[in-house]
Amino acid sequence: MLMKRKEFRELVSVEEARKIINSLEILPEKENITLENASGKTLAEDIVTGINVPPFARAVMDGYAVRAEDTYASSETEPVKLKLLGNIPAGSDAKFEVLAGEAVEIATGAPIPEGADAVVMVEYTSEENETVSVFIPVTIGENIMKAGSDIQKGERVLRRGRKLGTREIGVLASIGKKEVPVLRLPVGIISTGDELVNPGENLAYGKVYDANSYTLYAGVQECGALPLLYGIMEDDESVMRKALETAVSECALILTSGSTSSGVGDVMYRLIDEAGETLAHGINIKPGKPVVIGIIKGVPIIGLPGNPTSALMIFNEFVAPLLRKSLGAEAGIRKTEKGIMGTDLRSEGRQQLLPVGIARGRVYPADRGSGAITSLAGADGFIEIPPKTEFIEAGTPVEVTFFGEVEKPDLLIAGGFCPGIDILEDLSGLRFRTLYAGSSGGFSAIAAKTADIAGVNMPSKPKGQAGILYNTPTIESMRLSGAVLVKGYRREVGLLVRQESRITGLEDLKGKRLINRNRGSGIRALLDMKIEELAGEKGISKKEYINSILGYSSGAKSEVAVCEAVLSGKADAGVGLKDSTEKNNGLKFIKIAEEEYDFLVRKEVFDTREVKKFLQTLCSAEFASKVPSGLRVYERTGEVIHIE
Amino acid sequence: MLMKRKEFRELVSVEEARKIINSLEILPEKENITLENASGKTLAEDIVTGINVPPFARAVMDGYAVRAEDTYASSETEPVKLKLLGNIPAGSDAKFEVLAGEAVEIATGAPIPEGADAVVMVEYTSEENETVSVFIPVTIGENIMKAGSDIQKGERVLRRGRKLGTREIGVLASIGKKEVPVLRLPVGIISTGDELVNPGENLAYGKVYDANSYTLYAGVQECGALPLLYGIMEDDESVMRKALETAVSECALILTSGSTSSGVGDVMYRLIDEAGETLAHGINIKPGKPVVIGIIKGVPIIGLPGNPTSALMIFNEFVAPLLRKSLGAEAGIRKTEKGIMGTDLRSEGRQQLLPVGIARGRVYPADRGSGAITSLAGADGFIEIPPKTEFIEAGTPVEVTFFGEVEKPDLLIAGGFCPGIDILEDLSGLRFRTLYAGSSGGFSAIAAKTADIAGVNMPSKPKGQAGILYNTPTIESMRLSGAVLVKGYRREVGLLVRQESRITGLEDLKGKRLINRNRGSGIRALLDMKIEELAGEKGISKKEYINSILGYSSGAKSEVAVCEAVLSGKADAGVGLKDSTEKNNGLKFIKIAEEEYDFLVRKEVFDTREVKKFLQTLCSAEFASKVPSGLRVYERTGEVIHIE
Repeated sequence: MLMKRKEFRELVSVEEARKIINSLEILPEKENITLENASGKTLAEDIVTGINVPPFARAVMDGYAVRAEDTYASSETEPVKLKLLGNIPAGSDAKFEVLAGEAVEIATGAPIPEGADAVVMVEYTSEENETVSVFIPVTIGENIMKAGSDIQKGERVLRRGRKLGTREIGVLASIGKKEVPVLRLPVGIISTGDELVNPGENLAYGKVYDANSYTLYAGVQECGALPLLYGIMEDDESVMRKALETAVSECALILTSGSTSSGVGDVMYRLIDEAGETLAHGINIKPGKPVVIGIIKGVPIIGLPGNPTSALMIFNEFVAPLLRKSLGAEAGIRKTEKGIMGTDLRSEGRQQLLPVGIARGRVYPADRGSGAITSLAGADGFIEIPPKTEFIEAGTPVEVTFFGEVEKPDLLIAGGFCPGIDILEDLSGLRFRTLYAGSSGGFSAIAAKTADIAGVNMPSKPKGQAGILYNTPTIESMRLSGAVLVKGYRREVGLLVRQESRITGLEDLKGKRLINRNRGSGIRALLDMKIEELAGEKGISKKEYINSILGYSSGAKSEVAVCEAVLSGKADAGVGLKDSTEKNNGLKFIKIAEEEYDFLVRKEVFDTREVKKFLQTLCSAEFASKVPSGLRVYERTGEVIHIE
Repeated sequence: MLMKRKEFRELVSVEEARKIINSLEILPEKENITLENASGKTLAEDIVTGINVPPFARAVMDGYAVRAEDTYASSETEPVKLKLLGNIPAGSDAKFEVLAGEAVEIATGAPIPEGADAVVMVEYTSEENETVSVFIPVTIGENIMKAGSDIQKGERVLRRGRKLGTREIGVLASIGKKEVPVLRLPVGIISTGDELVNPGENLAYGKVYDANSYTLYAGVQECGALPLLYGIMEDDESVMRKALETAVSECALILTSGSTSSGVGDVMYRLIDEAGETLAHGINIKPGKPVVIGIIKGVPIIGLPGNPTSALMIFNEFVAPLLRKSLGAEAGIRKTEKGIMGTDLRSEGRQQLLPVGIARGRVYPADRGSGAITSLAGADGFIEIPPKTEFIEAGTPVEVTFFGEVEKPDLLIAGGFCPGIDILEDLSGLRFRTLYAGSSGGFSAIAAKTADIAGVNMPSKPKGQAGILYNTPTIESMRLSGAVLVKGYRREVGLLVRQESRITGLEDLKGKRLINRNRGSGIRALLDMKIEELAGEKGISKKEYINSILGYSSGAKSEVAVCEAVLSGKADAGVGLKDSTEKNNGLKFIKIAEEEYDFLVRKEVFDTREVKKFLQTLCSAEFASKVPSGLRVYERTGEVIHIE
């Protein structure tokens, strides 16, 4: 009996893949669009102007059109007097001929009359009885803009391939173009996978929303091409064959995502082989293994991975340059920034595009600890890890290539969920990237240097101590160094029950269904202690007490999941913050304790402007007045505890 | 009798103007748009996710869902055998419970069945008779992506004010949003001036095309706001009053251009004063003098200068930051680049925004020698000149702020018009900025260091020499140094006449109407010599001969203007290149001479990559085969003449 092996063809190298992609011929069409719709588009033809701009010699000042030589003798004390022939307002087609000793009043922008060769500014004149007195001499051409001095008739003013911005559009308008020929590059987008549903639709069990169609739509748009959505195709050969045929007849390039690895239901590469030619199946770069490049009836098809972050990375790395090149744009538009690795990183020794986040120049892998799949929400861009690199040390300089426009976060915040953090973000004016992974996840993130600040609320009852201590015992037991603990605020923790519930406290949970928080959550740990206290009071074991509550071992990963379980009737009570009942009218809050929520700050960043601003905001009167329901600042808020 | 004085109020300083503009309250509205239209828009509300992403624990590999502990003892030689319960394809809602000793086949993306806590990759298994053999052990969680590990339910995934790009749109799609609330900031755009007509319309005498409406439209769009065009308003109080009222009722901000200086027909500032309040009239920065800032019924109005380049500069400097701020975007999005002044520059001693072009890091004033008005087509951006600076030396470092997207030219080319230059541009792959100002303008541009290369065809007949020499005598007489002359190509020059014309050569011009080129044109100079020769042959004076030709002293500024005069019947013959008759079917070409068109290159740039590429292209076989009709390369093409 042999192990199953997947039928992957030989992967092509990154260089080969680029060569193949560069050899693809994508031919944009031409279309005429109005100037209002032209911004960001690429000019399809050279634009040669049929007129001069300005079309005639025009006055650039209000004043009098004169023959310069008539004014040579004038001075402030002995003005020259000229006979006034009339007036030319802007836009007028009035025609005059100015002879020696004559002048015509003229407005800015009006055409210079025949015979005149200069304009005297109105400030240096006076007018009385059809006579103009000129108090200064002017030279030939003074205050006159010659015909064609801005743009000259017959000139190529814009070259085909030019990307149209404000200035180009201004030039086109000024030579009288109302419509312009631009490039139209229709790019078909197809998502495949039976697990996909469209955003806005109901999400049945086993389904996920299709993100790739919209990510690629925006990406194609940013390149100046025209995305056409063909929707989600069932993982069925005949349906996909039909969809490909339609797209081939309508597009200059087709992008698919999903169905390109060699799993059970993956047929894309077979279809391409059948209807056209497969040029590559798999690129030797992580995450490029599932990429398919092919061509059907002259139309190139690129099959991207199904994972949204991988799809976006391969799009940015291989497809976007192709689109830009096909539209005649200059290369090298990738936005990059130098940074240093903020944490040690192990690689596989294979060439890799690794999604990363960047904060204040420090670069972190954008991985929520979920294994092979990484987060689109948490990644700003990616770094390229060369083949044979197996380890990148913290502090190594790296270059991050951004996913389009980027708003870089000021602080990376991990730890237990708290609505107070959104308020801190809003008031501080800083941008946070938050990764809620429970208090214990917060401690780990600080230890691993993957977060700047962790919000933590982990209670402990050290032996020989009367009350509950927050966070410091955990810090000690983890032997965490390199961090500073700043006391935050107090939060009311309690049971969340339905409005009509008869539960009034922990004592009533016996025989009821509880939805607990996940292990690693500070609130779950606090509930544990409260139950232990109560069991002690009742003279029974903690274990016995816990066994009397149904679902005590459950572990909802978020406050929202707790609320939903209670609201839907799946549980009779949950545990959480008071603020959740404010946001869910159907819920009632029964306080069981008040806990301390603190901020663990990495020592290395403690003196940065951003952390200072964060702590200032924490201690501000405005924050005190705006904290969500059930939270309150107290005398220890802002207290700094240095960790030895 | 006193001189007229314009009624300008006191100009506000740049700092005051910024303060006034920052105090304006512009309140965007909200609107819901679909994801396809969301790219580049600004989020109006926080987005909190109602689902986990992924919504369930999912397999990240094709394989078998198992209980990890069942596999601990497996090895390649002694596989563990598990009972196969069934198959879960991606998107399936099939439910299984995996007990000890059992497995379920699972596809990438499918939900992990209850009881299973790991996935064995298909590569390490084999299947036979409902039994799966597992050849390697897996750990708990292996090849599983946990529910919510990418985005967690209840989290604020995107903050209001976030600009939506590919990644944000991907996040919105993945949490199932089909529509998103974004900011809508309607900005009214009004052009004023009786001289304006819309692009696409007929251009009567005295009129110019309205460029500002479209420049501002694109500029407002680039800031993420919504431009609304109100068209061109007559310079008439009641018409403008009505237009302002409509715009005030529909917009959050109104931009007007033109009619803001205090000339005869300029009423904008009076209207604002009448219907609302004028906050500033004139900013003490060139070209900000005509700027008006006011407010009508709570809606701010900014009156911009009528000149397109000035309007765009004031828009970029004062309005765009306001729009971006109102849309919550980060400040400092101005694209700037450091460069050095390429030429000496005199300023007025007043604070100034000077439009400039930039080529290879060298910065030039974008001024075609037309006095106060500068070229929109020729400017890449502007530099700020501080007050009291009267002189900036060539070589001084300056910072250029770009007008939106910029494609910087590789070479600045001046001189006499030639269709061969467009071919050189196309074949070389370089970007040229061309300024056709005649051969003599080319010599001057090289002397003034405002161009890299000048195309020149200036003939001379030095005393004692038999034939005509091109360009070198002019270089000597101008005592031009710091340049290198590279021989270009030969161009047929001739008379351009209508097809039906009986003119067969210069001899037939007597009594006919000629349209000549302007002074400074090499072709005009060549015609002069030919006429002198002919007069000599006929034994009459040159002057007498010239007087017999009507319009000999005329001076069309471009080849196109010559063609039009002949085609329209205004002239019987013109002088120009053979290529023009190819482009105008109605014209016939009568060769009178072949001239030499050369390239004068500044010595400083002679060794740059760009100039080398230019000269390579000039000498290439491809160029030789693609030169326009009447041009030809010859044995001297590419010959370098060093100037002492």
